Amino acid sequence: MGSAITDSVLHPFDPLSLDEIQSAIGIVKKAHGDVFFNVVSLHEPRKAEMTKWMADPANAPRPPRIADIVVIAPGGKVYDGLVDIATKKITKWELLDGLQPIITMEELQLVEHICRKDPKVIEQCELSGIPKEDMHKVYCDPWTIGFDERHGNKIRLQQALMYYRPHVDDCQYIYPLDFCPIYDAEKQEVIGIDIPKVRRPLSKVEPINYHPAGVEKVGGYRTDLKPINITQPEGVSFKMNGREIEWQNWKFHIGFNYREGIVLNDITYNDKGTVRPIFYRLSLAEMVVPYGNPEHPHQRKHAFDLGEYGAGYMTNSLALGCDCKGSIHYLDAQFPTRSGEVRTIKNAICIHEEDSGILFKHSDFRDDSVIVTRGRKLIIQQIFTAANYEYAIQWIFHQDGTIQPEIKLTGILNTYSMAVDEDTKGWGTQVYPGVNAHNHQHLFCLRIDANVDGPNNTVFMADAVPSDAPVGSPENYYGNAFYAKRTKLDTTGKAATDYDGATSRTWDICNMSKLHPYSKKPASYKLVSREVARLLPKEGSLVWKRAGFARHAVHVTKYQDDQLWPAGRHVPQTSGEPSLGLPEWIGDGSESVEDADVVLWHTFGVTHIPAPEDFPVMPVEPITLLLRPRNFFANNPVLDVPPSYASTPSQVLARGSGVTDAADKMSRLAFADGANGTNGSCCATNGTNGMNGTNGVNGH
Amino acid sequence: MGSAITDSVLHPFDPLSLDEIQSAIGIVKKAHGDVFFNVVSLHEPRKAEMTKWMADPANAPRPPRIADIVVIAPGGKVYDGLVDIATKKITKWELLDGLQPIITMEELQLVEHICRKDPKVIEQCELSGIPKEDMHKVYCDPWTIGFDERHGNKIRLQQALMYYRPHVDDCQYIYPLDFCPIYDAEKQEVIGIDIPKVRRPLSKVEPINYHPAGVEKVGGYRTDLKPINITQPEGVSFKMNGREIEWQNWKFHIGFNYREGIVLNDITYNDKGTVRPIFYRLSLAEMVVPYGNPEHPHQRKHAFDLGEYGAGYMTNSLALGCDCKGSIHYLDAQFPTRSGEVRTIKNAICIHEEDSGILFKHSDFRDDSVIVTRGRKLIIQQIFTAANYEYAIQWIFHQDGTIQPEIKLTGILNTYSMAVDEDTKGWGTQVYPGVNAHNHQHLFCLRIDANVDGPNNTVFMADAVPSDAPVGSPENYYGNAFYAKRTKLDTTGKAATDYDGATSRTWDICNMSKLHPYSKKPASYKLVSREVARLLPKEGSLVWKRAGFARHAVHVTKYQDDQLWPAGRHVPQTSGEPSLGLPEWIGDGSESVEDADVVLWHTFGVTHIPAPEDFPVMPVEPITLLLRPRNFFANNPVLDVPPSYASTPSQVLARGSGVTDAADKMSRLAFADGANGTNGSCCATNGTNGMNGTNGVNGH
Repeated sequence: MGSAITDSVLHPFDPLSLDEIQSAIGIVKKAHGDVFFNVVSLHEPRKAEMTKWMADPANAPRPPRIADIVVIAPGGKVYDGLVDIATKKITKWELLDGLQPIITMEELQLVEHICRKDPKVIEQCELSGIPKEDMHKVYCDPWTIGFDERHGNKIRLQQALMYYRPHVDDCQYIYPLDFCPIYDAEKQEVIGIDIPKVRRPLSKVEPINYHPAGVEKVGGYRTDLKPINITQPEGVSFKMNGREIEWQNWKFHIGFNYREGIVLNDITYNDKGTVRPIFYRLSLAEMVVPYGNPEHPHQRKHAFDLGEYGAGYMTNSLALGCDCKGSIHYLDAQFPTRSGEVRTIKNAICIHEEDSGILFKHSDFRDDSVIVTRGRKLIIQQIFTAANYEYAIQWIFHQDGTIQPEIKLTGILNTYSMAVDEDTKGWGTQVYPGVNAHNHQHLFCLRIDANVDGPNNTVFMADAVPSDAPVGSPENYYGNAFYAKRTKLDTTGKAATDYDGATSRTWDICNMSKLHPYSKKPASYKLVSREVARLLPKEGSLVWKRAGFARHAVHVTKYQDDQLWPAGRHVPQTSGEPSLGLPEWIGDGSESVEDADVVLWHTFGVTHIPAPEDFPVMPVEPITLLLRPRNFFANNPVLDVPPSYASTPSQVLARGSGVTDAADKMSRLAFADGANGTNGSCCATNGTNGMNGTNGVNGH
Repeated sequence: MGSAITDSVLHPFDPLSLDEIQSAIGIVKKAHGDVFFNVVSLHEPRKAEMTKWMADPANAPRPPRIADIVVIAPGGKVYDGLVDIATKKITKWELLDGLQPIITMEELQLVEHICRKDPKVIEQCELSGIPKEDMHKVYCDPWTIGFDERHGNKIRLQQALMYYRPHVDDCQYIYPLDFCPIYDAEKQEVIGIDIPKVRRPLSKVEPINYHPAGVEKVGGYRTDLKPINITQPEGVSFKMNGREIEWQNWKFHIGFNYREGIVLNDITYNDKGTVRPIFYRLSLAEMVVPYGNPEHPHQRKHAFDLGEYGAGYMTNSLALGCDCKGSIHYLDAQFPTRSGEVRTIKNAICIHEEDSGILFKHSDFRDDSVIVTRGRKLIIQQIFTAANYEYAIQWIFHQDGTIQPEIKLTGILNTYSMAVDEDTKGWGTQVYPGVNAHNHQHLFCLRIDANVDGPNNTVFMADAVPSDAPVGSPENYYGNAFYAKRTKLDTTGKAATDYDGATSRTWDICNMSKLHPYSKKPASYKLVSREVARLLPKEGSLVWKRAGFARHAVHVTKYQDDQLWPAGRHVPQTSGEPSLGLPEWIGDGSESVEDADVVLWHTFGVTHIPAPEDFPVMPVEPITLLLRPRNFFANNPVLDVPPSYASTPSQVLARGSGVTDAADKMSRLAFADGANGTNGSCCATNGTNGMNGTNGVNGH
């Protein structure tokens, strides 16, 4: 397929196709010879052009397909480029200075190989108690170096967190080593090793393994779990048109890139025939995982998993293990290899529905009329593995207009060696003999490119507060007055705001020109987020400087093309001086973000003080938040979801088993089973009465 | 069945059986003649006796079955009594002064009937625009009066919130009336009416109905939802022995009473053969729903739904609408009627399992070894209807030792009349023309009778905080140091603590004599709760005085028999002077709660500023919290849950489709589908590649 044909089929938000990636690589190779391909990804359409095309696709020019290119040329020279796929022109080619692009999986995978053969590393292994001939049992998780002031950012570096596996199937995180090689990615060699003053020899502890043989060894699997089958005999309720999905009034485009992974564009809701825009673009745009142990060199452990490694690049192929139930729809992902081929991640995204329990219910106590309706949710999911750790990212859409980004944390703790029962000084926990899991945070930055009934939106902060009027005053005699105090965040400076649990603080993205006919309040989407740990590294600290986005729970900026990633475009080895990304864009904070095309940046997450329950692999810990329509719909938008059961007062009465007058009912509250119920149960329940066994009832 | 036989069968924690209720009623009637039965419920076994019996049921005396009785005798005299079922003796009979017991459903149901016939009410209805002959279209939600200083607490009163239905099947909350009759429950008559200065006539708006005919009228039901079937062909994974349940190492007793609804007792976890106690008793013990409109008489709207009406008494019969999927086990509930009969709520409690998604997952990026294991949860649920509103209470048990109480809010907003487009002054929202939904809070009090590895526990408050050492100091050179600051709550006064979102505050219930072998930290259960709205009615306000439990997120007391309900035993019409329940028990705050048999009281909930999306019936809004084991288990306790898919490095290697050496793998990252995967997929996925349609894959 030629790129011309591809162009006419692909949606402008679609990731680069295999053909497009190949084409762009070919163009670059032709012009610049052999280089290492770091990024070949969709350069997203300019919003002004894209908006015109979306409004009138038949007549407006279709935004061109542009490849965003990053390469590393011989000598470690880094170039940012743009390639126009249709014209085959390189429209930008820029040499960068002091910036290191994202670390690819291939770069990571090389490090372990080289460390095993490096004499200095072999020497340290021997000092730790590992004989030379066991070097194949030595492993390393290579991380970007973060920033190390001794090395700066001209040389592309990685730090190798070292581990050992007594047996190839043992979990290496049980056996951390205490030294840390520094690896030069250009030279492909170890240029130094950070060695602690106090040495900690390799642990000799018995392994605790989570693989089947390990479990069988200590008693085997439990046998008392009966299967739960989830089937969709008529298939799914959504429709795919390319990468556009339609489901329960929702419509949006599912993109994917090396950096953020899933990107959702042009999210609209069909409100009784009117297609209403809500978000132009939603993504998880950055994250940082600072560790809290101040001892050198652990300060370097503060991974920006998206900016330094890429949620797309690290994405699991879900063909390797079925992670969902029901009918699953998958999308693949394609990325360049370093040498300029294309690799495919099969089943990088999964799409499925789940039953979500009661959607709404009401019973009238006086007449036994009742309605109960079940809800459904749509889940767009990817899972990525950041060395030891797993993040399952779920974009959950609800029928009532709520969008719920949810992140499930699992995988394995980053571990460091300790002498058995050594004092961790409160910076970590001994989760297994000789295994120190350091305190850490997982801070995520959600980028919300708002489009609530159109591009011009205003963000308010809402706090539930008591009236100022004192108890006993005429305005508040009984002292019960309270209300939602709304603060307009009208400049980028004022919009830098923190979470306040005491006032149940939320943020409302409002369209001030769309007042609700009943409430007279602006159409809005409310950000309801309760897991909002503040950044614990102090003001002025290395992490604080590099992760400017994490200083506040919310920032608001005016939309600018290419302002996508709040710690900067190239994150590895940034010093934080100056802070890249959001702090640059906000500047002196004077820019107006009132009634403008705004982007809301929300940093949320958890602080994790490890415990032995998290080891050797951590049961899922979910973090969730909501984007909820408020004063957006005329009323509850899900009244037309078919109920499981409904009876009106007159229907109850007509069956002769209910009453509409309260006094009549009283006489029926008598000594008999079922006196409180109607005979018109919605299904043949055989629920037993507190005895052994259960009669299965298939709900509907 | 005689009570002697019943006694030997019933567990001491079981609710009174039908026979026992009848027996107790008979004994009281014989001694005291015709009285109204307000409560006939299990008087729970004294903990000291019960603990002895639990430790040695074969030899220790079985705690006697005692009925806790409240009656209203002629003249409105209220008596608290105890009846020993086996000996048929009344062991306590006490006349109360100035205390009103719980309002029963029967009392509520009478009010509407009487209001419809009351000339003063008819007059007000006429003034509102309702002709006399339409009084059968007038409805009222009777609430206890709360506390009204004009009436005190010697007379048993209710306030009648008035509504109108144009048609019997219309939702009356669309048509609130502006006046409020006061009803004397003893005289069974309306003794006064609160009438606002500015009158608001009956709304003439077209109804918006959620019943099928109403939905059909405006376009009908959506037709694009395909079924999701959830089946358990081999039945459930739990075992019932009477009301004791065993599931996935958990074992506990499921009680139920008129007041709290579900009560869970003697919660233990079988930790590899050792049965470890965790909680002696868990329940939702009280709640308060203050409304924020300061205009008289809305200050009286602050329902204590448990203490004033009873989560048990108001429980839905789930035979009226199937609320769960899969195989459901039900338990009934039995309560006295006012006249001394017994009524049964069929299917008051439902018990079922749900798939809970990924339990844990890890992939090793270097060798493609992977494990993914799905989780299961057990849900014990009741749903109660408090007039307009529904609360679905779920007690969710996870395999990993986590208990997750979750409350789903649904039903209908409490509404008050307003002239169309009248200014609500920020105290409410016009959710439909002429319908003012007032701001309100839902504050719940979870009672946690802790027993973490035994009765002697200590509660700590844990805050994630930065090190005090400044950036650049030797102790914190890079500024990244942070840790969990733990504050021992050693007296009842010190333990009255608030939520702090900034420090991700949690509370740990610890057994200081059980230090973890690895972490050296005490075995604990951590309370992780993020929806912790503070009480917004001000200090000294009526609500603040009556709902002492809601002043702080956490209180800790030393266990005392009968200290179950934190707003007092008899809540209706308490003045809050003095504050009953928790404030009484805490007193001057000097009592030690260190290394003692402690009860933790946790108040949590949400502030609700209504929006039109909540009307006419509200999509479910969940509130959830976690009780998590920390430093309790030796390690992750769910490693023995059978995985969906697992492959070790050596297995991957043996299949020839994976590698164990990183450098070997590099060569495979080439231009081909599946290069990143193994061939050993766990199921035949037919996931399509971004095209229309979906091939269903049945996950496992």
